[in-house]
Amino acid sequence: MDDDSRAARWEQRTEIPLFVAALVFLAVYATRVLATDLPVFWRHLSTYLLLALWAVSAVDYAVHWRLSGQGLRFVPTHVLHTLVLVLPLLRPLRIVPLYEAVQHRSGQPRLSLYARVISYAGLSALLLGFAGALAVYQVERGKPGTTMHTFGDAVWWAASTLSTVGYGDVVPVTFFGRLIAMVMMTGGLALLGAVTGSFSSWLMRSFSREGDERPPGR
Amino acid sequence: MDDDSRAARWEQRTEIPLFVAALVFLAVYATRVLATDLPVFWRHLSTYLLLALWAVSAVDYAVHWRLSGQGLRFVPTHVLHTLVLVLPLLRPLRIVPLYEAVQHRSGQPRLSLYARVISYAGLSALLLGFAGALAVYQVERGKPGTTMHTFGDAVWWAASTLSTVGYGDVVPVTFFGRLIAMVMMTGGLALLGAVTGSFSSWLMRSFSREGDERPPGR
Amino acid sequence: MDDDSRAARWEQRTEIPLFVAALVFLAVYATRVLATDLPVFWRHLSTYLLLALWAVSAVDYAVHWRLSGQGLRFVPTHVLHTLVLVLPLLRPLRIVPLYEAVQHRSGQPRLSLYARVISYAGLSALLLGFAGALAVYQVERGKPGTTMHTFGDAVWWAASTLSTVGYGDVVPVTFFGRLIAMVMMTGGLALLGAVTGSFSSWLMRSFSREGDERPPGR
Amino acid sequence: MDDDSRAARWEQRTEIPLFVAALVFLAVYATRVLATDLPVFWRHLSTYLLLALWAVSAVDYAVHWRLSGQGLRFVPTHVLHTLVLVLPLLRPLRIVPLYEAVQHRSGQPRLSLYARVISYAGLSALLLGFAGALAVYQVERGKPGTTMHTFGDAVWWAASTLSTVGYGDVVPVTFFGRLIAMVMMTGGLALLGAVTGSFSSWLMRSFSREGDERPPGR
Repeated sequence: MDDDSRAARWEQRTEIPLFVAALVFLAVYATRVLATDLPVFWRHLSTYLLLALWAVSAVDYAVHWRLSGQGLRFVPTHVLHTLVLVLPLLRPLRIVPLYEAVQHRSGQPRLSLYARVISYAGLSALLLGFAGALAVYQVERGKPGTTMHTFGDAVWWAASTLSTVGYGDVVPVTFFGRLIAMVMMTGGLALLGAVTGSFSSWLMRSFSREGDERPPGR
Repeated sequence: MDDDSRAARWEQRTEIPLFVAALVFLAVYATRVLATDLPVFWRHLSTYLLLALWAVSAVDYAVHWRLSGQGLRFVPTHVLHTLVLVLPLLRPLRIVPLYEAVQHRSGQPRLSLYARVISYAGLSALLLGFAGALAVYQVERGKPGTTMHTFGDAVWWAASTLSTVGYGDVVPVTFFGRLIAMVMMTGGLALLGAVTGSFSSWLMRSFSREGDERPPGR
Repeated sequence: MDDDSRAARWEQRTEIPLFVAALVFLAVYATRVLATDLPVFWRHLSTYLLLALWAVSAVDYAVHWRLSGQGLRFVPTHVLHTLVLVLPLLRPLRIVPLYEAVQHRSGQPRLSLYARVISYAGLSALLLGFAGALAVYQVERGKPGTTMHTFGDAVWWAASTLSTVGYGDVVPVTFFGRLIAMVMMTGGLALLGAVTGSFSSWLMRSFSREGDERPPGR
Repeated sequence: MDDDSRAARWEQRTEIPLFVAALVFLAVYATRVLATDLPVFWRHLSTYLLLALWAVSAVDYAVHWRLSGQGLRFVPTHVLHTLVLVLPLLRPLRIVPLYEAVQHRSGQPRLSLYARVISYAGLSALLLGFAGALAVYQVERGKPGTTMHTFGDAVWWAASTLSTVGYGDVVPVTFFGRLIAMVMMTGGLALLGAVTGSFSSWLMRSFSREGDERPPGR
């Protein structure tokens, strides 16, 4: 059995557990941030749970690296995996490829490329926005000069950032809040690129199809 | 007679009434929001009228679903129809396909693909902006801390949101106002995608045409 | 002699005078707005001059319409001409096609499509920004609550609007100022579309070229 | 030996020194701006160093012009070179083509076109943002009414400008600060164009590939 098929088998077996782990991670983190009056015991428990879930992610990354047999070439060719390891809050973004794998196995016909890109951009925006709002809210809450008083403010800020609207009525003022914001701006640019790119590509395709249907003399 | 042709016949017959219903809906809603000193009788009448027009929309949706014979697959494949049912204020967006159908029947030559996309994006922006400004103005008006004092402020906010400029001099501060704003930001992204995508596609086309006209040796 | 060649001859003869007229129009308008202490005589003279230059534009439009022999179809197919007639401040945008015509006649090789689009988008942005800053400054100057104290503020606002950045430190507060701003936002979207579209198209082209250079077996 | 090969030889020999010079330029400039309590001797030394490095750049530009044998056509066809000469802070942008040349010589396989565009856009954004933040910070620091109190504020402003988000919580207020900001807005637009364009082109390509793999009857 060669490396490729072993990597495929590993991915097939760990799909569902990793999917569940990603959802649990986001839920535990959200609870931790939003439930400010959590008793100390639960507070500690959630910390250990987050660490354990991160360790699961690290093990999966290591196994993938090992089975790929690519050495250092693995890092630049698996950007999403690596990003997710460094910034564990982005882990739920892995839901997207997992969702595709599940749908693929269940034998349902795949959506067209442009429909997939639009729906992935939408899902990614929702997950990135929710995780980013949580992270920034945790960092900014109660800091002097902050304009982010409630979690609703944080979500509002996240939406205006990802869409590159940027009202500026709610903005992060701390170093780490701004660092997370910069990651989200990059995400907003990528989303814009995905939406406009897929729209353009869909247009091109329908245009050439329309051209085919017409008599060539026209 | 198969399902497809019955669906087509239904659409053909309900086109004009639905077009009128959509315009009346927007007009009644606008009157309700902008005429603050409406007598109680007219206030109640407009409520019933809006409900009745929404019911018309729901019946049309149900008939479409039934005639399509697609079961639950109908919802993801008719995104615009579904969205319009949930958010009745977006109903006027249905004017766009209706306009195309009317133009098609009247035998006029269709515009080129890119001209249609640009004009649809423009019409959608106008309708989305007007409906969004109405809805946000209704929600925000008179709330503590609001910066949206007149309907003109609401329209100005809508324009700066849809174009993703986002000055931030006028912003919604309530939960529902921000919810509507998020829908409009998504609209702004889609508009940007439509404009840039169609422009790119038009460029590509004129470029390949230019290439064809030159001698191949160049 | 058919209509087409007469229209072409008309355009060829009026090119240079219209180019000069557009430049004079912008210069007179700029002087009028920026030189606030202009004596009454010069103030009146500049008004008459602007009216006369607008009349020249109207005559050119009428002749074009007549020679085209298209009837009412002329308006939707000559969007730039019509826009320039309604909003005389956009007249300098006509410099762009005139520049092309002059370059064409002088026998210089034309730039590639994408280079032309980028340079037109750049020129249009400069002209639109300058004209828009002038118009908004004239409307907003000295109004209560304005944040636009100098012409420099107006230019800064125009740049942040056309690039869709929209800081919001300087914003129009009057009805007409906001109306002009909405026109400029539309311009900003179109510019973004031009830049991203031409870049995408250039990429596509270099990509297919690269593919051609490789052996087909790859 | 013709001009082309001499130009190529010149470029090959000056590559590494120019790369080092660009890095030193940025480092010296950053030190000068950020270390406000630099002794007078070091302050003068850094000025002379910056001038010397600029002179190196000017000599390289002159030699390129001479060897190209293009006369005045050289300026419009070498936009990046010219821009870098006028605005020496953009010099590090030359790192991008140098990086490509180095990678090319070392015999490594080139990345795909879209991967290169994305990575160049990313590198350019980082360099443009850092250089722009330095320049604006130097100009704005300590001016009356400024909102840019620390270099962190300047970097935050640069990120929100390049991504066209534009919160407006930190904005330049001086003439030169706004001038630099306008250059950076143009950069932000170009970046958006690069990202969306390359994404669109990648989508198109994978789409046509997918179409090829399917049986033609579908």
